[in-house]
Amino acid sequence: MPDSHFPLAAVVGADDLKLALCLAAIDPAIGGVLIEGPRGMAKSTLARGLADLLPSGQFVTLPLGASEERIVGSLDLDAALGEGRAEFSPGLLAKADGGVLYVDEVNLLPDHLVDLLLDAASSGVNHVERDGVSHRHASRFVLIGTMNSEEGELRPQLLDRFGLNVALDAQPQPAQRAEIVRRRLGFDADPVRFLSSWSVEQEALRARCQSARTRLLDIPLDDAALEQISQRCFAAQVDGLRADLVWLRAARAHAAWRASARIEDEDIEAVAAFVLRHRQRQAAPPSSTPQSPPPHEPDQPGAPRQQNEGAGDWGQLPAQAQPVGARREPPQWPKKS
Amino acid sequence: MPDSHFPLAAVVGADDLKLALCLAAIDPAIGGVLIEGPRGMAKSTLARGLADLLPSGQFVTLPLGASEERIVGSLDLDAALGEGRAEFSPGLLAKADGGVLYVDEVNLLPDHLVDLLLDAASSGVNHVERDGVSHRHASRFVLIGTMNSEEGELRPQLLDRFGLNVALDAQPQPAQRAEIVRRRLGFDADPVRFLSSWSVEQEALRARCQSARTRLLDIPLDDAALEQISQRCFAAQVDGLRADLVWLRAARAHAAWRASARIEDEDIEAVAAFVLRHRQRQAAPPSSTPQSPPPHEPDQPGAPRQQNEGAGDWGQLPAQAQPVGARREPPQWPKKS
Amino acid sequence: MPDSHFPLAAVVGADDLKLALCLAAIDPAIGGVLIEGPRGMAKSTLARGLADLLPSGQFVTLPLGASEERIVGSLDLDAALGEGRAEFSPGLLAKADGGVLYVDEVNLLPDHLVDLLLDAASSGVNHVERDGVSHRHASRFVLIGTMNSEEGELRPQLLDRFGLNVALDAQPQPAQRAEIVRRRLGFDADPVRFLSSWSVEQEALRARCQSARTRLLDIPLDDAALEQISQRCFAAQVDGLRADLVWLRAARAHAAWRASARIEDEDIEAVAAFVLRHRQRQAAPPSSTPQSPPPHEPDQPGAPRQQNEGAGDWGQLPAQAQPVGARREPPQWPKKS
Amino acid sequence: MPDSHFPLAAVVGADDLKLALCLAAIDPAIGGVLIEGPRGMAKSTLARGLADLLPSGQFVTLPLGASEERIVGSLDLDAALGEGRAEFSPGLLAKADGGVLYVDEVNLLPDHLVDLLLDAASSGVNHVERDGVSHRHASRFVLIGTMNSEEGELRPQLLDRFGLNVALDAQPQPAQRAEIVRRRLGFDADPVRFLSSWSVEQEALRARCQSARTRLLDIPLDDAALEQISQRCFAAQVDGLRADLVWLRAARAHAAWRASARIEDEDIEAVAAFVLRHRQRQAAPPSSTPQSPPPHEPDQPGAPRQQNEGAGDWGQLPAQAQPVGARREPPQWPKKS
Amino acid sequence: MPDSHFPLAAVVGADDLKLALCLAAIDPAIGGVLIEGPRGMAKSTLARGLADLLPSGQFVTLPLGASEERIVGSLDLDAALGEGRAEFSPGLLAKADGGVLYVDEVNLLPDHLVDLLLDAASSGVNHVERDGVSHRHASRFVLIGTMNSEEGELRPQLLDRFGLNVALDAQPQPAQRAEIVRRRLGFDADPVRFLSSWSVEQEALRARCQSARTRLLDIPLDDAALEQISQRCFAAQVDGLRADLVWLRAARAHAAWRASARIEDEDIEAVAAFVLRHRQRQAAPPSSTPQSPPPHEPDQPGAPRQQNEGAGDWGQLPAQAQPVGARREPPQWPKKS
Amino acid sequence: MPDSHFPLAAVVGADDLKLALCLAAIDPAIGGVLIEGPRGMAKSTLARGLADLLPSGQFVTLPLGASEERIVGSLDLDAALGEGRAEFSPGLLAKADGGVLYVDEVNLLPDHLVDLLLDAASSGVNHVERDGVSHRHASRFVLIGTMNSEEGELRPQLLDRFGLNVALDAQPQPAQRAEIVRRRLGFDADPVRFLSSWSVEQEALRARCQSARTRLLDIPLDDAALEQISQRCFAAQVDGLRADLVWLRAARAHAAWRASARIEDEDIEAVAAFVLRHRQRQAAPPSSTPQSPPPHEPDQPGAPRQQNEGAGDWGQLPAQAQPVGARREPPQWPKKS
Repeated sequence: MPDSHFPLAAVVGADDLKLALCLAAIDPAIGGVLIEGPRGMAKSTLARGLADLLPSGQFVTLPLGASEERIVGSLDLDAALGEGRAEFSPGLLAKADGGVLYVDEVNLLPDHLVDLLLDAASSGVNHVERDGVSHRHASRFVLIGTMNSEEGELRPQLLDRFGLNVALDAQPQPAQRAEIVRRRLGFDADPVRFLSSWSVEQEALRARCQSARTRLLDIPLDDAALEQISQRCFAAQVDGLRADLVWLRAARAHAAWRASARIEDEDIEAVAAFVLRHRQRQAAPPSSTPQSPPPHEPDQPGAPRQQNEGAGDWGQLPAQAQPVGARREPPQWPKKS
Repeated sequence: MPDSHFPLAAVVGADDLKLALCLAAIDPAIGGVLIEGPRGMAKSTLARGLADLLPSGQFVTLPLGASEERIVGSLDLDAALGEGRAEFSPGLLAKADGGVLYVDEVNLLPDHLVDLLLDAASSGVNHVERDGVSHRHASRFVLIGTMNSEEGELRPQLLDRFGLNVALDAQPQPAQRAEIVRRRLGFDADPVRFLSSWSVEQEALRARCQSARTRLLDIPLDDAALEQISQRCFAAQVDGLRADLVWLRAARAHAAWRASARIEDEDIEAVAAFVLRHRQRQAAPPSSTPQSPPPHEPDQPGAPRQQNEGAGDWGQLPAQAQPVGARREPPQWPKKS
Repeated sequence: MPDSHFPLAAVVGADDLKLALCLAAIDPAIGGVLIEGPRGMAKSTLARGLADLLPSGQFVTLPLGASEERIVGSLDLDAALGEGRAEFSPGLLAKADGGVLYVDEVNLLPDHLVDLLLDAASSGVNHVERDGVSHRHASRFVLIGTMNSEEGELRPQLLDRFGLNVALDAQPQPAQRAEIVRRRLGFDADPVRFLSSWSVEQEALRARCQSARTRLLDIPLDDAALEQISQRCFAAQVDGLRADLVWLRAARAHAAWRASARIEDEDIEAVAAFVLRHRQRQAAPPSSTPQSPPPHEPDQPGAPRQQNEGAGDWGQLPAQAQPVGARREPPQWPKKS
Repeated sequence: MPDSHFPLAAVVGADDLKLALCLAAIDPAIGGVLIEGPRGMAKSTLARGLADLLPSGQFVTLPLGASEERIVGSLDLDAALGEGRAEFSPGLLAKADGGVLYVDEVNLLPDHLVDLLLDAASSGVNHVERDGVSHRHASRFVLIGTMNSEEGELRPQLLDRFGLNVALDAQPQPAQRAEIVRRRLGFDADPVRFLSSWSVEQEALRARCQSARTRLLDIPLDDAALEQISQRCFAAQVDGLRADLVWLRAARAHAAWRASARIEDEDIEAVAAFVLRHRQRQAAPPSSTPQSPPPHEPDQPGAPRQQNEGAGDWGQLPAQAQPVGARREPPQWPKKS
Repeated sequence: MPDSHFPLAAVVGADDLKLALCLAAIDPAIGGVLIEGPRGMAKSTLARGLADLLPSGQFVTLPLGASEERIVGSLDLDAALGEGRAEFSPGLLAKADGGVLYVDEVNLLPDHLVDLLLDAASSGVNHVERDGVSHRHASRFVLIGTMNSEEGELRPQLLDRFGLNVALDAQPQPAQRAEIVRRRLGFDADPVRFLSSWSVEQEALRARCQSARTRLLDIPLDDAALEQISQRCFAAQVDGLRADLVWLRAARAHAAWRASARIEDEDIEAVAAFVLRHRQRQAAPPSSTPQSPPPHEPDQPGAPRQQNEGAGDWGQLPAQAQPVGARREPPQWPKKS
Repeated sequence: MPDSHFPLAAVVGADDLKLALCLAAIDPAIGGVLIEGPRGMAKSTLARGLADLLPSGQFVTLPLGASEERIVGSLDLDAALGEGRAEFSPGLLAKADGGVLYVDEVNLLPDHLVDLLLDAASSGVNHVERDGVSHRHASRFVLIGTMNSEEGELRPQLLDRFGLNVALDAQPQPAQRAEIVRRRLGFDADPVRFLSSWSVEQEALRARCQSARTRLLDIPLDDAALEQISQRCFAAQVDGLRADLVWLRAARAHAAWRASARIEDEDIEAVAAFVLRHRQRQAAPPSSTPQSPPPHEPDQPGAPRQQNEGAGDWGQLPAQAQPVGARREPPQWPKKS
């Protein structure tokens, strides 16, 4: 029996991150999720919780210092003599298929390994080749990376390849802190009982993801949404076009999550910060948006990554004018009293 | 017969460190203990003394320059041919099971090894995997690390994962110095006689730890304590939530140590410095606590790590107003005249 | 069946880059193409699209961290005993023959490997030698390298050996962005259908390249063109003579692309920026052209590489006086409404 | 027959160093001796001379660049098959047992090797372990390290672990220089005759060491001495407690050397500089001794290590008030006319 | 059939370099030729052309990153068992015998390999020794190195060991550029025809070198020339004496090239810059020539290496007073109209 | 037949260096000779010439990049099975026995190899040990190192261990330059004839060295000389005592060279600069000689190493007052007209 995980449904706060993880589960083509935040924020607990919402439920942690061979697996050519084929020893990419590949402090990994992980994550395939012999296997996983940017940045080239980026609030309020610890203690004390007490909420969450996944392909990636997104990307001066593509997909996944039949403005807004946070030039002056100002207030989601955007409890944020309907749906996470 | 160790009961002064070590022995889930202090403070003697209070009594020192394989052990796959299973050569983690794993100058160890040690310490399991074959064994130990921060810092990410942090006073008073040396000489001159002369005190200490361990699970991790702790953590601006969790556990272990049936305020106070010392931002100005000032005077235990907090003889400290009862119990360590 | 690629004909904008790639396909002796631009510009999609226009259709990506042996192949001398010849295990250069060898972030590759790739690209031969035994095989490929010069420069020595250099515009206009994403989504959703819907345009492009290739050798590398080019190179103060040679070849390829029987001024202009961009001294003051000012306005194509020359949609460029006929043919890329 | 060494009795000057070496020979538990001084001071001659006073007479030089395996020896596990035990190939630590292990320029050695040497020196045991098989053997030696601190410092952590520290005077007076050279030439010209001419003095020195060693354990490590030493250490602001312990042992060894039945004040004084030199904070201002001024003038022996303390001929030192009896016994080294 | 090379006779301009290469071919004892200049100057084409003038015609390129073993060859001692001799696998030095060894960017090669190449070049012998077995073979080659000193200097020690040093002009005039490209294209288009069209000139050049080689030993290295050269070297403040020796030899080779029976002043002048360029102190002030001013104007050939001395078309140089006859013979290179 | 060397007797100028080399040949216990000077000074020719004056005539060059094993030789333990002894493959130290070991640019060698060479040179023995098996063989050679201190210094510790140090004059006068080249050309043109023409002088030199060697041990290392030397060393503020010892030995060798029966003042003077040059503190102010000013003018030979002391033709030096007789004998080197 695999180790039981703390259920994602029971996580307190971190609503943005939970939302981003669910969107990645609904449409893995969005790409991985990069989580930023200081030590001690239970980032791995959240990532582990996501695995439960995925087909295989696998949760694989990439150890710091793992070799390329350990990641991709190895081809044993000696076994090929006599039989004309090589024996493949699967690596971590094989193990992560259908689940989550979790890389703590991805910014400390050598570039060529990050590159390799992102390739496999985006193609869903691991292709190993040696001396003309090759092996390929499915490697469909959600890549979750964490980084504390005080300890070294990821190259922009690699940052951009993570679909979504969320920053965790370093200092939740006392009441929230206590609740987080309380649930953790409850889980640690008696995992079976804890899981059972959260099974309804967790099952609802799993079902919601599942139905969103089913509904996803029926929601059109419509032109109106795309045009609005491209306007926003241009205004935000993001480099390249991956932002547009990811944004559209993420908005659709959000529509599916809302059980909507089409992408609405609120879907576009809801994921804006996830998409833009790591793709904006670092020193972009606020007034430099050159033309066609986007219809919605672009500043908050488009604010450059340096700002300390919390991803914590929404109630804490200063009130904001919401030009087009409710900017976000209220937090859907179960609250137990 | 294993080498005899200097008994923890006979250690002079260093009361804070002894207390922290006992708490870690009572509830290993608190996590390891990081000892800071200059050269020549008999840190290894203290750590070695803790091993006597633990089930296996093992004391394993991790040599500087140890390889990952030496730490986790190795899987010999050649042995697998014909039998379908691999032969596991145990490493230092296996040897340390049930005792103490001591890492002198842990700040000089490569990050990925520190990471690995902290993972094993927190999970209590060592999991080795190679080419699809895996082996796991219990690895329940108290991790004791020492560092002299003048010679290089540990990354904040890793600092936070040590449960408790204690700084030793670099310059004990003359009388205490003399007593320390006197006992050391007594032990070196005739270990058997020395151990025998301290056997009552040592046995009492061992019994006290043992009974505290038994009593531990009957003490509730109650909400009032948790809420008070979360207030304090928020006020101290610690990053992340590990502080809250460790503090609550350490307070309970302290209650068990006092043979109390519940966590009292004094338990929360007694361990505050151990928990907060290494988790506070380095340049936090004293007046920046933004809201809900904690009921107790927060300055001393919440003072940032740069201060030269002694952990020596309590009598030496300047008198302090104790708002809620006696802030600490008087030193319980046996004194021999 | 090989993976299907996004057809080059369906790429939106990036006209300069598409043109440069086609010229390299028409006359591989021009040398490789170095693409500069930020993340997320689908550079690999474009390079992959070029492979379809080449004889073998092969598209080989050189992984970061590839060893020399993996690139050139290896000679197994043990196999030589008894037979007097060595067995050759082909490497990436063998695989790329007749197609594209794509090196992402070529500026991060060790110099001696870049050197080796450029040698093979320019000679069309891979020559491996070990202990007096040698093997050679054809290795005719178009080398496509990308670099983001913010992350490290290529040595001038190596820069010069890339025939052509194109910079991608980092921030296309909203409408173009949307169209790019729309086509990408169309392709990803149903590659077969997408390819089929673009088959006419793609086939036309392939045919145009093919006929240009056929026509190429009938177009003289005439003296008038050469003299004009040498004047321009001298005026632009390029180091060395590779610029002259490449420019003449590229102008001829452009004439072939236009189905012209001879090199016209417009051909010389059309490729000027591709040839000069990476070959001009970095701090050349604009007024330093010492003598014999070239007949055409030399500033724009001869502007040093630091300038942010877009390679995007032509309509966006400020109007320019065109001294000799139309400076460039209007974009020939199919547009689908 | 082993190579003959220059006899310690025939060394001119360097009285402090000779004294320190003898003390280490009398009580190896004092720990190693660290010699500082410039090039060309015959440091290795002195260390080699000490070996003659030790049981095995072994003198082992640790070469710069020695590997860990060469130092500790190696376990050959292949030999274990069939017999259930491993074959141990002894290293330099085994060879040095009962003699001197000499490390020239110890500050250039990697830290983990210095650590390993100090561990073996203090425990008297070399413990080798590999794959669960282990071997231990006695390794009782006096560790002599030299360093020229202009070429790189030893970490404070490691400095402290050397029991005693002596600095050699870089520039002896002409008469002394000539005498040193004269004896060296005498030895080089005819070692047998030279040794014979010094045999009485050398034998006396050996006998004195031997009888001091015998007498040592009868001299109490008495409380009065210990308290005085702890006062001095506190006043000198040394970090940690190793200073106290070493000082007391060294004072006792000095009493034994004087054939005294108890530690006198003069013994404490005589070794003060050896103990304190490398254990004082580098920039301690002379007036910072915070409390309980020690009864004796603390400045000279407690002066920090930066001062150029000579260890040469005593007659050269400026006269000093000696508060308690003669601060040092007059030089006991044989002088030949 | 070996690859055909572009004939040296057909090279446009670069007269100085061609002259230096011919002198090295006439008297290899002059030592190698170091070519400086920017990218794209066809340096390898010129070096390759020299090979045709040498006995074996071999042209060997030393790859960046070549190992010592690959350069000198390897001794296989296993083959020695039973036969008493080792088997030698020849390396690049063996292959280059009788021809040219070309090292592109020699300043990027590790020092010990440059050293090794220069030793072999000057002795004409490659001597390999391993475990007491040795092999030697003739290795008479002209060493041609190129460097772009903007990318790293060669140590002065190694610079001096190159016999001659020539700098290429970075920016030939337009007409010359065009002619260079024209010939290159002619060669690339139809090598056989091109070689045939230049066969008379190339044959004349080969014959001239050959007859100069024959005549060389009949020309005395006379005292008058030597004394004049030593005066010039002293005045130019070159370090060491290699300059004198090389200058005398190069002057004699130049006399042979001119079919003269003795060294004339013009021979001394003609090679002065080749000899002095890399051997002068970098910041030598022009007025520091301390005594006995040389009879000829010393400034131009003795100008330090920092100056941008072109080696291009002579007609471009500003007119100079020629104190002793024509300072150089007019260019002898064939010009084809 | 070994290669013939340029005879030392035929070397022009460099009298100081020739003298130092001869002294080292007369009494190898003086230690090696370190030659400083710029490129192109035929340093290796001089060192090679010394070999002819030594018993075995061996001349071994240590290649840059030689491994420790190549230098000391290797022990093959496999050969030990069955026979109880190991097979030793001799290295460069074995080959150099009885001759010269020449290390060009010794300052670029790793420290531990320099250390190893100096140990072998001073002890005359090479001792190899591995896994408890050991081998020793005579390794009596004169170590000649060269360095160009512009390219990196030797550590003072290692400098001091070279017995003598001579700096070559970088720029000999024109007439001397010409003569040097003339003889070199003569040798290169016809070595047999050249050697024959110099055989009388070379034989005389060899005989003089030989007879000096025989006479050496009869010359007392008398006290008067020693005392004068120690005064001089003290005044010159050299670190350590190796200077005194080497100076006395070198003076005696010089006396033997002069065929004198005892050391005279002129012998002490003649070698002063060789001994002091590399052993004086770099910034010693000229007036700092603290006491007992030496009887002879100490400034010139005692001048610190930074000064550009020529070792060229004596006639060039400015006249100096010679307080005690002729400071040096006039150059004894044969001059051929």
